[in-house]
Amino acid sequence: MNYRSVFCQLGVLMWVLSVSILAVAGWSAVQVLTGNDAELLPLRAFLLSSVLGVGLGTALWLLSHRKAGEIGRREAMLLVALSWLVGAGLSALPYRLWAAMETDVQKYDLAFESSVNCYFEAMSGLTTTGSTVLSDIASLPGSLLLWRSLTHWLGGLGIVVLFVAVLPLLGVGGKRLFRVEAPGPAAGGVRPRIQETARALWLIYLGLTVAEILSLRVLGLDWFDSVCHTFATLATGGFSTRNASVGEINSAAVDTVIIVFMMLAGVNFGLYYMALRGRWAAIKEDRELRAYLGIMVVASVVITACLTGFPVLTTTGQHAAEGLGETIRHSVFQVVAVQTTTGFCTADFNLWPFLPKAILVIVMFVGASGGSTGGGIKVVRCLIAFKVLLAEIEHVFRPKVVRTIRLGRSKVDAEMRQSSVAYVLIIVVLFLIGAVLLMLLEGGSEIDFVTAATASAATLNNIGPGLARVGAIENFGWFSDASKLVMSLLMALGRLEVFAIAVLFMPSFWRSE
Amino acid sequence: MNYRSVFCQLGVLMWVLSVSILAVAGWSAVQVLTGNDAELLPLRAFLLSSVLGVGLGTALWLLSHRKAGEIGRREAMLLVALSWLVGAGLSALPYRLWAAMETDVQKYDLAFESSVNCYFEAMSGLTTTGSTVLSDIASLPGSLLLWRSLTHWLGGLGIVVLFVAVLPLLGVGGKRLFRVEAPGPAAGGVRPRIQETARALWLIYLGLTVAEILSLRVLGLDWFDSVCHTFATLATGGFSTRNASVGEINSAAVDTVIIVFMMLAGVNFGLYYMALRGRWAAIKEDRELRAYLGIMVVASVVITACLTGFPVLTTTGQHAAEGLGETIRHSVFQVVAVQTTTGFCTADFNLWPFLPKAILVIVMFVGASGGSTGGGIKVVRCLIAFKVLLAEIEHVFRPKVVRTIRLGRSKVDAEMRQSSVAYVLIIVVLFLIGAVLLMLLEGGSEIDFVTAATASAATLNNIGPGLARVGAIENFGWFSDASKLVMSLLMALGRLEVFAIAVLFMPSFWRSE
Repeated sequence: MNYRSVFCQLGVLMWVLSVSILAVAGWSAVQVLTGNDAELLPLRAFLLSSVLGVGLGTALWLLSHRKAGEIGRREAMLLVALSWLVGAGLSALPYRLWAAMETDVQKYDLAFESSVNCYFEAMSGLTTTGSTVLSDIASLPGSLLLWRSLTHWLGGLGIVVLFVAVLPLLGVGGKRLFRVEAPGPAAGGVRPRIQETARALWLIYLGLTVAEILSLRVLGLDWFDSVCHTFATLATGGFSTRNASVGEINSAAVDTVIIVFMMLAGVNFGLYYMALRGRWAAIKEDRELRAYLGIMVVASVVITACLTGFPVLTTTGQHAAEGLGETIRHSVFQVVAVQTTTGFCTADFNLWPFLPKAILVIVMFVGASGGSTGGGIKVVRCLIAFKVLLAEIEHVFRPKVVRTIRLGRSKVDAEMRQSSVAYVLIIVVLFLIGAVLLMLLEGGSEIDFVTAATASAATLNNIGPGLARVGAIENFGWFSDASKLVMSLLMALGRLEVFAIAVLFMPSFWRSE
Repeated sequence: MNYRSVFCQLGVLMWVLSVSILAVAGWSAVQVLTGNDAELLPLRAFLLSSVLGVGLGTALWLLSHRKAGEIGRREAMLLVALSWLVGAGLSALPYRLWAAMETDVQKYDLAFESSVNCYFEAMSGLTTTGSTVLSDIASLPGSLLLWRSLTHWLGGLGIVVLFVAVLPLLGVGGKRLFRVEAPGPAAGGVRPRIQETARALWLIYLGLTVAEILSLRVLGLDWFDSVCHTFATLATGGFSTRNASVGEINSAAVDTVIIVFMMLAGVNFGLYYMALRGRWAAIKEDRELRAYLGIMVVASVVITACLTGFPVLTTTGQHAAEGLGETIRHSVFQVVAVQTTTGFCTADFNLWPFLPKAILVIVMFVGASGGSTGGGIKVVRCLIAFKVLLAEIEHVFRPKVVRTIRLGRSKVDAEMRQSSVAYVLIIVVLFLIGAVLLMLLEGGSEIDFVTAATASAATLNNIGPGLARVGAIENFGWFSDASKLVMSLLMALGRLEVFAIAVLFMPSFWRSE
């Protein structure tokens, strides 16, 4: 393992985060200059955090850049793991420093007086999960809300670039899962190709961001809310600036725009890359895209049917307007919000009947498409795993027929078959370990199993809210510190597709070869 | 598909069942002759059932024996599925006919007035599950209790012979899972070899049966209880003659004997076959056996630690005697009873703390060894699946190292790797479908999720009791008919390792080739 090259790159990443923090400090400074005194302390917190971040980044870089070599497979995995684990630490600084300076406990939600809370919130941001420890979100100074949303956006961008452009070309993770074409003989090796793909992805992400901000602004949201909700939507994160999430905005038009952009964010970004090259036929043939949309439609229809005549409460505690249109609006919003693993809420789905809740939990696990900003197991893996299970049953009575498993026209090879089924199983096992740990850490009697199980599922699959005591109108602030750290780890595990974190626990990963 | 050969064999099986029913009628007749009037109606019910059974068997045979050909792979699977599905129907007849004749509702538990209840109880017997619809078991006439236990014993024998001797040689199911040696050039093809193996297995099963009956008798149980509990132990069934299961006998010596024989019943019967040939070295090297015992020891130790100082209630509602010895006794008994999927109870483990309950639910899924009378996923599959998951994680950072997965000295081939992981996933999926169906069928509000989930797990894995409203001192009688039929199907699915039932739902299974 070449630690120097890992630390050198990690230093660069700390700089990037610090510059982002500095950008929020800039916004905060403008607020202060225009007479908003509430931003005085946050401004200091952001400036201090950014200085500390730059210092940390520079230290890492100075210590390691001289002998830093190429980034190989192991180095890439360690770097990815550290980026999120250490990055969350740096991203938590503004919250922590602000809370340390702020003394007006009457006015603000001071959950950030706990360092673990800050780390949880920062990890929830960078992993685009959206679970929060805050009960009174709206009381926070604007710059902190902006930073929360920006951590989503940065995390989402990082994931897309990593999983579509970087890792597959380094030979980590399933290449075909992310539709990356064979590298071919690129001049100067793999690096120029990564840069080219990454640049295209970044432009696509930026384009979608601008489009959603403008759409929301046109519908009457102010610039601040438009930007924050856009960051949370495109990263499939879920942090809102309102205590009652998107339900508090209470606009069918806004809901519709957010639904559309959540769906777009849950699509494999490789498909947008294909679209830019005019390869529409391949997109139309994409089985994962079809299944992704198909699951959404079926889930929405079933939930709408179950909720017809059922009194839907919005997240603000009011009865939703009656009529099929409203039922469809809330059903579709929750299905899309949960399946894309965004986790925005307009309705308090914890009060819904069993079947709608069960469907929401199932789509939590299915998740969005591979190579999107969404989490969960990913539709493409579920598709392959389902086909493998059917083939296994058929194999029993037709052992001589070797059934080729296909996704559209492309053959799914044995390695991908096994890794897809294994991945589903790994997620199930991690989910169970998480649920059992939460039950044990919370003392067993004070927490019900539905809460523990859905808290585990919602963090592992990077959704945000779960059911019962972590439902749509609840938060994660009441958990013990130990539980919050477990859930922070679950978020990182889910976000980095398990492997990047799991290898850290394997002795053979650290052994020199 | 050669239906004639299937029906012909099914007819033979109906005869076997009818003869078994007739044997119980014989016992009942002796009781009547010795002045036990309570056996009058049961005697009639058994005689009538056996006549009907012979009639059915003869009809099937007459209709099909002329052109019956060889049993191939598909025919074997259909026959296996029908044996349990139709066999449970015939086995339910004595219950139903007795209840139809009996009018003394004050004296007897008349759950058997419902045909669905009778089918559930018979399926629970033949699949060696041990879930019951009865609340007052002890009120039933002795012959009916004997028949309940005998269905276990027949089902257990059927499973061992099928999965160790018949199916692997027909090319159904994983050969190595059951340690069947390569058939080699047997004179006259596969049939003599099946017969030879089946005969050995039958003798082993019979030997264990005699040994346990005598052991229990020596400890003071009467012949009736000794026989009934032996049938339920060796089949890893779990029906008892007492309302409060084995806990009502309340004897540490009896518990110990039953623990030992439950453990023996959960071992791969292929190993006994090896022992008879003196191949002790191979047995000592057997990884599944080691893991099977290892899991039991670890689970017992952890549960004992959790229960130290905890007031353990027995199934009769009394406080268990204090002291480490008693805690160990109940912990070990429940771990072995649940992991072997027997489902006997001495303690009301539903009242235990979270961790012991969670461990019991986990070992429910792990189950006993492949090729034993026990159910669950089977230790060998869990072992392989665990190794595959570890290898998958390692593969991410070492893609060029092809890791061979071994069980002891033998290599696990790609087909077995994939089928093991797939099987685990199939069980998880079936468990979830079962739990959701039970929630929906019971109306969602009247049943808690723990009850639905553990009822699904306990029937699918052929355990018997679950938690909450299907806990150690509860029964399954309160479920709706639809739920009972769903659980009957789950029992058959779990018992026949899913495939034999699942293929019935696949169009390609029925298509002629």
